[in-house]
Amino acid sequence: MIKEGETVQLTDGKHSFFLRLKKGEVFGTHRGNINHDDIIGKEYGSEVFSHTGHRFLIVRPTLHDIILYGIKRKTQIIYPKDSAYITLKLGITDGMKVLESGVGSGALTIVMANAVKPSGKIYCYEREEKYIQNAYRNITLAGLEQYVEIKHQSLEEKLPENFFDAGFIDVREPWLYIENIKKSLKKGAPVGFLVPTTNQVSETLKALKEGRFIDLQVVELLERYYKPVPDRLRPEDRMVAHTGYLIFGKND
Amino acid sequence: MIKEGETVQLTDGKHSFFLRLKKGEVFGTHRGNINHDDIIGKEYGSEVFSHTGHRFLIVRPTLHDIILYGIKRKTQIIYPKDSAYITLKLGITDGMKVLESGVGSGALTIVMANAVKPSGKIYCYEREEKYIQNAYRNITLAGLEQYVEIKHQSLEEKLPENFFDAGFIDVREPWLYIENIKKSLKKGAPVGFLVPTTNQVSETLKALKEGRFIDLQVVELLERYYKPVPDRLRPEDRMVAHTGYLIFGKND
Amino acid sequence: MIKEGETVQLTDGKHSFFLRLKKGEVFGTHRGNINHDDIIGKEYGSEVFSHTGHRFLIVRPTLHDIILYGIKRKTQIIYPKDSAYITLKLGITDGMKVLESGVGSGALTIVMANAVKPSGKIYCYEREEKYIQNAYRNITLAGLEQYVEIKHQSLEEKLPENFFDAGFIDVREPWLYIENIKKSLKKGAPVGFLVPTTNQVSETLKALKEGRFIDLQVVELLERYYKPVPDRLRPEDRMVAHTGYLIFGKND
Amino acid sequence: MIKEGETVQLTDGKHSFFLRLKKGEVFGTHRGNINHDDIIGKEYGSEVFSHTGHRFLIVRPTLHDIILYGIKRKTQIIYPKDSAYITLKLGITDGMKVLESGVGSGALTIVMANAVKPSGKIYCYEREEKYIQNAYRNITLAGLEQYVEIKHQSLEEKLPENFFDAGFIDVREPWLYIENIKKSLKKGAPVGFLVPTTNQVSETLKALKEGRFIDLQVVELLERYYKPVPDRLRPEDRMVAHTGYLIFGKND
Repeated sequence: MIKEGETVQLTDGKHSFFLRLKKGEVFGTHRGNINHDDIIGKEYGSEVFSHTGHRFLIVRPTLHDIILYGIKRKTQIIYPKDSAYITLKLGITDGMKVLESGVGSGALTIVMANAVKPSGKIYCYEREEKYIQNAYRNITLAGLEQYVEIKHQSLEEKLPENFFDAGFIDVREPWLYIENIKKSLKKGAPVGFLVPTTNQVSETLKALKEGRFIDLQVVELLERYYKPVPDRLRPEDRMVAHTGYLIFGKND
Repeated sequence: MIKEGETVQLTDGKHSFFLRLKKGEVFGTHRGNINHDDIIGKEYGSEVFSHTGHRFLIVRPTLHDIILYGIKRKTQIIYPKDSAYITLKLGITDGMKVLESGVGSGALTIVMANAVKPSGKIYCYEREEKYIQNAYRNITLAGLEQYVEIKHQSLEEKLPENFFDAGFIDVREPWLYIENIKKSLKKGAPVGFLVPTTNQVSETLKALKEGRFIDLQVVELLERYYKPVPDRLRPEDRMVAHTGYLIFGKND
Repeated sequence: MIKEGETVQLTDGKHSFFLRLKKGEVFGTHRGNINHDDIIGKEYGSEVFSHTGHRFLIVRPTLHDIILYGIKRKTQIIYPKDSAYITLKLGITDGMKVLESGVGSGALTIVMANAVKPSGKIYCYEREEKYIQNAYRNITLAGLEQYVEIKHQSLEEKLPENFFDAGFIDVREPWLYIENIKKSLKKGAPVGFLVPTTNQVSETLKALKEGRFIDLQVVELLERYYKPVPDRLRPEDRMVAHTGYLIFGKND
Repeated sequence: MIKEGETVQLTDGKHSFFLRLKKGEVFGTHRGNINHDDIIGKEYGSEVFSHTGHRFLIVRPTLHDIILYGIKRKTQIIYPKDSAYITLKLGITDGMKVLESGVGSGALTIVMANAVKPSGKIYCYEREEKYIQNAYRNITLAGLEQYVEIKHQSLEEKLPENFFDAGFIDVREPWLYIENIKKSLKKGAPVGFLVPTTNQVSETLKALKEGRFIDLQVVELLERYYKPVPDRLRPEDRMVAHTGYLIFGKND
């Protein structure tokens, strides 16, 4: 039974909408308004009608779909192929305190926040105020805002010391903050970085070596889709060739 | 402070051991025996000595490292690049009941079990008895046995109906069981498959289309490592070229 | 000094034209007409003006550029990454008699014809009349028509026996003609195939095994471009993910 | 009919040997000696016996196979996937004068020399004397020594001016010689580079931009093999992940 506070996906086959349910609220679509109260209490897989009589199916969305189709993007996002890998590689799990910077549109934050439930927290440092409100809205859509704390602060400023169990950094010049990041991490804590260019990889590696991080790794993930046709199986004609290079290390 | 029941990693720089702590137990290495009681109560990052005086560092392991270096493999495992992606794509999260078959060495089971904590469960159907005990030991090493139920049963046999929130199938001929799998899944539930050959992809897609699964996707993930040398950055000479094709769909 | 019969490239920075020079002829562009006689006798790197006074630079084109930018495509072409590889893998060289089918737009034909100069020949079997004239025009643009013989004939029909030093087949159902192809090849002659789907790869391999071809190989080539920016070096965002699978074997 | 001067491949199913035929010479194998005279005059596909009675099949080798299996490697070689692409991209064809440096083991030299036949020439500048003799032997094995001139000279020294129709540079620090290379190339001539690291790509691009080369491109080629099994078609488990980055430009 669908409860208040859950995030549901409404689809009419052509369009999909994602909404977090709150008693008394109304969700407007180009096909008419839908009362949240008409959804609460129903089962997933049942239908709901807008005030103009348009029919929608109520679907339980995956985080994956919320990230790809539900959140509003104000920045380039970290895609599921990367965010899933990052979260497992860093060992993000229940109870951890995780450093993240910047928050961007919150796509990685959502995946990591879901992993630290119910007793951990993601601490996001974002220096661009313009991204914070949008990221918060996206994280709230995913129902994970209680596991995230966003700070309007740059990595240059003071961070809590010996505090984080893991960290992930997606800023333009991560090498400038390595010392500060190191102090904020517990001993042995894993940390990751995403940068789009090879020059940034080199600069980051240099700073990590100087900062005595260990177990350094650089990796990229390529996702290749196939046309799902049994008798004419073949890769799609084109693919995303690059999102970013991932760098991992551990605080020694 | 490290507590009984936690899994720790001991490393002397050359070798790593993973053990789940239990009061009174002794862990034997080629460098002498270590009392679990000498670890319980210490902090991560501190050291412990074997009875022969050999020194080990106590590290908090990530699930990623437990899977890659800690578990005992009796089968080809599903690697982190794939298991992380599968888990996010299927939307595996707290409270879900997940169908898995077979259990293999439990590498994917561990990642999914960690994701359904604290109130969900992975139901593994494995027809080869010889794998079950090893998988159970691996899952226990990761501290996740209470979120997993392994059944010595093939997918041909009766499954609970309209029961699972998601499923992942890694067996040789998944197309034989599509009807049975479908009945066991709730409406709208996502399901995934891993198969190594293109012929198996075609057969599985055919069965999924006949079984009226929707949103079919076929994808493969490639993981390319770089030598982490700032001034001579370049990909490793060789890479894993194939683990398997992933197929995803939803129960309509 | 540029001579009659050569193929030149004219470029005004924005547009490029490829023409084969013939005394007395006129080439029409949207920027006015250009007399071939105004080009013949000049050096590469010099300029020529249209009758309206528009200036073009005269460049010596590579086969690569003629194929990618000069020829008229009536079919999907075989790209340089594949045609260069095919030609070297098959050992196409001066004096060889090569079987090709179909001719398509002649993109591979041009590369192979250039390789068999001056005493070899490419024999193209094309059953679709509509492609032949266009292919011939493209091959002529590249100045290679004397090394190519196009036959309006399917691979079902009789081929010369024990005649070809090598072969390359790019048709929809190559497995139907394996026996006929085999008879036409000399003993030991290498042969290649391009097919877009995995199902076609399987069918072709099956027929090649039944036809007692040896040294079977299946390979695909991926071409990944980078943005040529020294300080922000990174792969292009998107790439071609698939042109076709290449299959190679030898007539035993 | 096989003639003196040709290069043949002898195979007994397990081992292959490549030899260039010369009347009166003897070729020693671990299975006994073979008289060249016993091969000259035969047809490809026939057999020859060593003085101990061991049977070999006489095969016409492709350049591809001579490069991969016949030549002696004293350096990392440029593989066919790259050398075929380079040769087509640079438009290497009959009559061209081509700059190459260094010669390495001659693997690229062989492919380009075959392409400039019968009236062109490859000019190889190699500063390491130790490589020259081996490269010359390899090029001779391929029967192409008359199309190659190897100079024991570095790219720092004076090169002929406005002389080369194309160039390919495979040295550690190509950016040091860009000005010298530019002067040696004709206007509009294409030039390519192979470097293994991203740092070298950046340095080379910077020098090419400063040297006013145009149409800069950076590309890498990946070659992925499949197991040629019709009913269980799948990629090989492992692949070569990197040979080098290719950089192309044109002398403006």
